Amino acid sequence: MTESLTEETTTDAAVDKELLEKLLLGRWAETRRVSRAVAADPQFHKVEGITKEDHRERVLKQLHGLVEAGAVQRAFPEEFGGQDAHGANIAAFEELVTADPSLQIKSGVQWGLFGAAVLHLGSEEHHARFLPGIMDLSVPGAFAMTEIGHGSDVASLGTTATYDPTTEEFVLNTPFPAATKRYLGNAAVDAKDAVVFAQLITPGEEEGQAPINRGVHAFYCHIRDEQGNPLPGVTIGDDGQKGGLNGVDNGQFTFDSIRIPRTYLLNRYGDVAADGTYTSSIESPGRRFFTMIGTLVQGRVSLTGAALAASKLGLIGAITYGNQRRQFNASSTTEEEVLMDYQLHQRRLIPRLATTLAASFAHEKLLTKLDDVFSGADDSDQNRQELETLAAAIKPIATWHALDTLQEAREACGGAGFMAENRFTSLRADLDIYVTFEGDNNVLLQLVAKRLLSDYAAEFKNADAGALSRYVATQAQSTVLHRFGLRRAFQSVQDTGDERRSANWFKQPDVQRDLLTDRVRQMVIDAAGELRSAAKKPAAEQAATFNEHQYEIIGAAKAHADLLLWEAFTEALEEIEDPGTKKVMTWLRDIYALSRIEETLDWYLINGRVSAQRAKTLSPYINRLVARVRPHAQDIVDAFGYTDEHIRMEVASGAERERQEEAIEHYRRLRASSSAPVDEKVLLKQKRSGS
Amino acid sequence: MTESLTEETTTDAAVDKELLEKLLLGRWAETRRVSRAVAADPQFHKVEGITKEDHRERVLKQLHGLVEAGAVQRAFPEEFGGQDAHGANIAAFEELVTADPSLQIKSGVQWGLFGAAVLHLGSEEHHARFLPGIMDLSVPGAFAMTEIGHGSDVASLGTTATYDPTTEEFVLNTPFPAATKRYLGNAAVDAKDAVVFAQLITPGEEEGQAPINRGVHAFYCHIRDEQGNPLPGVTIGDDGQKGGLNGVDNGQFTFDSIRIPRTYLLNRYGDVAADGTYTSSIESPGRRFFTMIGTLVQGRVSLTGAALAASKLGLIGAITYGNQRRQFNASSTTEEEVLMDYQLHQRRLIPRLATTLAASFAHEKLLTKLDDVFSGADDSDQNRQELETLAAAIKPIATWHALDTLQEAREACGGAGFMAENRFTSLRADLDIYVTFEGDNNVLLQLVAKRLLSDYAAEFKNADAGALSRYVATQAQSTVLHRFGLRRAFQSVQDTGDERRSANWFKQPDVQRDLLTDRVRQMVIDAAGELRSAAKKPAAEQAATFNEHQYEIIGAAKAHADLLLWEAFTEALEEIEDPGTKKVMTWLRDIYALSRIEETLDWYLINGRVSAQRAKTLSPYINRLVARVRPHAQDIVDAFGYTDEHIRMEVASGAERERQEEAIEHYRRLRASSSAPVDEKVLLKQKRSGS
Repeated sequence: MTESLTEETTTDAAVDKELLEKLLLGRWAETRRVSRAVAADPQFHKVEGITKEDHRERVLKQLHGLVEAGAVQRAFPEEFGGQDAHGANIAAFEELVTADPSLQIKSGVQWGLFGAAVLHLGSEEHHARFLPGIMDLSVPGAFAMTEIGHGSDVASLGTTATYDPTTEEFVLNTPFPAATKRYLGNAAVDAKDAVVFAQLITPGEEEGQAPINRGVHAFYCHIRDEQGNPLPGVTIGDDGQKGGLNGVDNGQFTFDSIRIPRTYLLNRYGDVAADGTYTSSIESPGRRFFTMIGTLVQGRVSLTGAALAASKLGLIGAITYGNQRRQFNASSTTEEEVLMDYQLHQRRLIPRLATTLAASFAHEKLLTKLDDVFSGADDSDQNRQELETLAAAIKPIATWHALDTLQEAREACGGAGFMAENRFTSLRADLDIYVTFEGDNNVLLQLVAKRLLSDYAAEFKNADAGALSRYVATQAQSTVLHRFGLRRAFQSVQDTGDERRSANWFKQPDVQRDLLTDRVRQMVIDAAGELRSAAKKPAAEQAATFNEHQYEIIGAAKAHADLLLWEAFTEALEEIEDPGTKKVMTWLRDIYALSRIEETLDWYLINGRVSAQRAKTLSPYINRLVARVRPHAQDIVDAFGYTDEHIRMEVASGAERERQEEAIEHYRRLRASSSAPVDEKVLLKQKRSGS
Repeated sequence: MTESLTEETTTDAAVDKELLEKLLLGRWAETRRVSRAVAADPQFHKVEGITKEDHRERVLKQLHGLVEAGAVQRAFPEEFGGQDAHGANIAAFEELVTADPSLQIKSGVQWGLFGAAVLHLGSEEHHARFLPGIMDLSVPGAFAMTEIGHGSDVASLGTTATYDPTTEEFVLNTPFPAATKRYLGNAAVDAKDAVVFAQLITPGEEEGQAPINRGVHAFYCHIRDEQGNPLPGVTIGDDGQKGGLNGVDNGQFTFDSIRIPRTYLLNRYGDVAADGTYTSSIESPGRRFFTMIGTLVQGRVSLTGAALAASKLGLIGAITYGNQRRQFNASSTTEEEVLMDYQLHQRRLIPRLATTLAASFAHEKLLTKLDDVFSGADDSDQNRQELETLAAAIKPIATWHALDTLQEAREACGGAGFMAENRFTSLRADLDIYVTFEGDNNVLLQLVAKRLLSDYAAEFKNADAGALSRYVATQAQSTVLHRFGLRRAFQSVQDTGDERRSANWFKQPDVQRDLLTDRVRQMVIDAAGELRSAAKKPAAEQAATFNEHQYEIIGAAKAHADLLLWEAFTEALEEIEDPGTKKVMTWLRDIYALSRIEETLDWYLINGRVSAQRAKTLSPYINRLVARVRPHAQDIVDAFGYTDEHIRMEVASGAERERQEEAIEHYRRLRASSSAPVDEKVLLKQKRSGS
């Protein structure tokens, strides 16, 4: 190796596009290819600028098209024509976003929420009775969980389902306006039936006792008659125009004492006998609730994948255009620069490319875990909890990243980026709601943080005295180092003035891992310390203390997600054997890691993890890394494997290159001709030097 | 004063809403009130979800409504029924954004670009001939500057206007497809005429000499005949659906040797005599170009104000909803918390409120400068340049801030934020293009940076040897301090463990000013040092060196803008006499300053301006500040002075409060009754303790 210590050679870097495409398609490559072929069909493509009525009609028709294409059955049991294939189902479903996010979400409502609730919360009897109609779309349905007054806090829903033993029915009620079911896909126009979430109230166990609230349960419910009119007692509203996804008919339900048979309770985790006796396999009402809700994790997983697909489309558009579009003539040659040659443009797009890759690899792990749990291959309580925590960490990062990337891509294309024909604004508008539905991103991050805090607490509950004292010693040492800036000072001495040595430090995977891990760990320790001081105080004071640290606690959850993405990217690198591809992808992994560290560099400085001397070199080093990746950016986005039918952007069509070449050719010919105008500036210079 | 050194009393803090509203309305308060009254009229309000054709028709009608309301004449000369009132004109124009951004932009095209080009670039003859039709909208027009191939780089436009002395006409041509005029408001449907920007080519000064390119000039041009058909030689295209602003009919022009009279050159800064002789009052072609383009600065100024108005609407919606909406029951009382009581919610909204105020005060200064220049009160070259630099610094900050604030506000309202009835998504979609039109934000920031660098160079060109050596000595000292972390270490000794002393340091205006100023200054010095090393190298190498530092150079421009906003906020505080209002507004100024410093805290740490000990206390201090402002947040947004007719958001209507109160009342009554269900969890606890 002739590679110097100070600067890597870049000559052998080259992306094997086919190999990278295969890696990115992942475990469900074949399913993704099949689903992409469906999404390439123009019948499924979004038409811009139509009314919501036309859009809704088009998307409903597309859903029937999906049924015909055999695209929606994968997750359902084999006995109903399905494949019991859960990971594959999500992978296929994600790919639909390139056709039209409304199509993705409406099919998600029908089969991923409404159908999945029957599948996961219902008994075999429910499956036999309801799944066939759900699967073939003869029964479109809504998933009636959210209420106007309660979104994230599902446990506090206001709708009630009170059991009446005299008729063996449940009576569903909307007791006050805030309990109106709202934002329900399929509700405004199409849903015939629905799964309704309500507080289950059963009679008191003994004569004269108050009724008992068993917590939120799911009920199958008919909503409209055969003619499409609301059934008696059901009032339906239309949510109307939205910021995006206008192909989905979101709407509202209120219930005025409607009665449903006892057997319509989806009773897998809790049942009511004819006499009103309640039974459940899970004794703790809290755990029972989280188990029921937990079956819906696949929504979060699929939004993550869809958000990444949309990010990829955005990057394809902006990077392709950035390689063709010319603007300004900085270097005084005859041709203007292509945008991708500007450092700022590289800085805007390449770290986002790196994050997209990191998140894609993390998503692949998430999907594998989902498949393990839902297929039964590894369906332990612990694995379910890990799946939920992982989804709660990655969904926020991926969905916010999609909005950020689509926006940066749109701005990087200037006015062209704003045209509907280039889809950035349309995708962004449709994906906007992804950051707050299926779990508000900030609420999910808070769940992750609470999990981190309780894991930390558990670690010490079971630790022996030796472990604890070793740990405390380490901590104390760390605090001492930090307090006196010794660790930092030590780095300074080593680093003074040597930017290259510093870069060599930052590019070591162990250093990156340590920095990212250390941050999560220390943030959790710090937060736990703050919370411990209130541990024995009344609940209201505990809550106040938690609230006073909410901002930093959520910061810890984000740091955890950063680490998860880094780990996934680093593991993926191990699968790459081609050295040229590995080199470019390693740079991108480094860009991901170092951008995250740059973003939170103040923390590393304050906590003595990075010296000021070393920190100073970080930004210039990232600048050099993005410049190194720049010649390969097009190959990477090409390796996403989308075809023109998926991309459908004028900016990515090659038209810009053609226009630029025509302009260059025009000026070349003009210069060669005798009629070329002389620039007045040139003339003035000649006159001045002549006089 | 009983106020302790360590914690401010908060009891006397109170916002005098009327006083604050007056302060925020600023110098053109009366004009703003008149324009808000116009904007409150339902005929001007955006209707969501209609097709672009219906929207375009509606907005054209609205423009006629504005003429009737006397809302568009302010900037024009008195002799044509105007008022020669430039600041007032922009203030009035900005306020229209609350009605419909399409209305604002289409009227901006007609009167602020098309009309203003005739006014500022044309002669009195042009005024007399063209302004009346422009003002009364009998002649809708386009402003044909941008081309598909050239947006930001106007000097390189491809369209040519070649003078033909034999017929005394200019021949306009689109020499290649990339020179097609594009994204022109009014072009697709309504424009009868246009101002076209083209390279002016005049004959060689002597027989047989090559023609001369005089650079980009503006030409008045007829586009459509009375029936609305394109005139011969003009081809018109429709840009179609866009990401927003679909009430504006953006379109395209290509010219195939169309001929216009010699007198159609808007000749204020450059004229062509009948024989083809070119004359200009500005000898330098470069300065001439920038003078012509400089007259268009008002577009940037007005977008800044409109973006702030939209930010205010977003904050009104989110903060009002945050004060009414309840979710989760953290403190275990019977009522759930309102969202604004969550620290994270305060952190999401209150710093954005602070920035909105800072930018509003900076905008007011910008508007005053614009009025000084355009009214002739202070129309020096230097003041024009200052106006341009100021606009180039503030427009990017304000427009990006609007998108960021509208998005955060939408997310802070969850699903409700996504409904068109709450306008966040609609305003955000419409304002998206503000960040790249009328000067791409990054290109503008680069202009600012270049100005900072040249000011810095000029400072030393004229400095005597003494000044220079004193300066170098200061710098050297600063470097030594920085290199060995002495200044930082000194702070550490003072600060160790004393968070409150540290907070007292951060809240001093002099400290804030020093920190913000020092950052701009040092960043410029650092960048200048890097660029100086290439100063004597060939142009291509100089350009490469500049490009290698583009990211940090643009960082310096942003730091400069941060300082401008801080200065404006601090000056505004001096005008507040009411102590309660002053206290709250001072907290908000501090939040603005400290949020900016927090955002770039790594720089302050690396460069030894803030010690690690002190830096550690910054985030908790901001947390305390936002909590202090929290009880006053509603008063502040109320003081923006918008009425229900401007706000038009369900989330701000009080409906949420009503729903929450109904729910609370329902549960209160239920608890008081004998039929209240007992929670299964409670029952389980009772059983366990009983057995």
